[in-house]
Amino acid sequence: MHQLKLGKAFTLMESGPVVLVTTHDGKSNNIMTISWTMVLDFTPLFAITTGKWNYSFAALRKSRECVIAIPTVDLLDQVVGIGTCSGADTDKFAKFRLTPIQGKFVKAPLIKECLANIECRVIDIVRKHNIVVLEGVAAYSNPARKEKRTIHAVGDGTFIVDGRKIDRRMMMASRLSPGLYG
Amino acid sequence: MHQLKLGKAFTLMESGPVVLVTTHDGKSNNIMTISWTMVLDFTPLFAITTGKWNYSFAALRKSRECVIAIPTVDLLDQVVGIGTCSGADTDKFAKFRLTPIQGKFVKAPLIKECLANIECRVIDIVRKHNIVVLEGVAAYSNPARKEKRTIHAVGDGTFIVDGRKIDRRMMMASRLSPGLYG
Repeated sequence: MHQLKLGKAFTLMESGPVVLVTTHDGKSNNIMTISWTMVLDFTPLFAITTGKWNYSFAALRKSRECVIAIPTVDLLDQVVGIGTCSGADTDKFAKFRLTPIQGKFVKAPLIKECLANIECRVIDIVRKHNIVVLEGVAAYSNPARKEKRTIHAVGDGTFIVDGRKIDRRMMMASRLSPGLYG
Repeated sequence: MHQLKLGKAFTLMESGPVVLVTTHDGKSNNIMTISWTMVLDFTPLFAITTGKWNYSFAALRKSRECVIAIPTVDLLDQVVGIGTCSGADTDKFAKFRLTPIQGKFVKAPLIKECLANIECRVIDIVRKHNIVVLEGVAAYSNPARKEKRTIHAVGDGTFIVDGRKIDRRMMMASRLSPGLYG
């Protein structure tokens, strides 16, 4: 994992990939699959929709930390599997053969097999709407990874894989975040 | 535009496409490009990140209505163009040759050229985080449209086009929204 500039971390999330969110509850690690996420600011700030229906929520609320890990299409079956069982009775790192790596700032682990990871602190929980607001404090990418295509959940059991990339940087130059330069 | 079951509308948003959000301020229509969005509930409820920096925000706050329109890759240059000029001095429907259609519930217009449209009411504005909470009240799709690939903004001036679709409905059957059946 190579450290990534924090000013670029929002670009890992903006396109809406399904992500894995890891937590550590003081005893053990857990992982949940989340596709209800958005960027709130370039700094970076993120929002995720979660609540008591996710076993990880208790750890998220208590520890006020997590890691957002970005999986790629070769990990799809693990991503779906993680989303359809519970940390209440499953060690998901073991079951899905994923490798936890210790980050620098939070106790929740990075996932070695993912394309990128973002260490996050919980800075607010908007209970009324089940929104958890996260601040990214460190980001990492795995440039050696050959498969870089992320996955987008449709919500009906199908998933869209990243297709081709189109460049409109010139057209958008006036509106891009300063964090993307230099 | 064919009416779509409301229980399926969240699937238009879950994969994180860049969207166009239309508003009507009592005098004229406007459009903004937004990629910071997420699903909050199947009912459907959505969150978008916006604030005073977007000219449309005043109309959104005042009218408490909008339409989320889902563009496809053939509309990319319009989507980028809409995101890099302001409704303060531009009639974006005219400039980008898009056709407003009157919806059933809100004064903000649907966009005829888009793949799908969702009429929305603003049900809350979380000022602290610049989050606008929207409830979808009607959804429409354009099944005659041949190009169905949506676009995902990366945030650095590049865009990812939908690639192939992978089916994991069997594996996820226990976790799918009841709104997707029947």
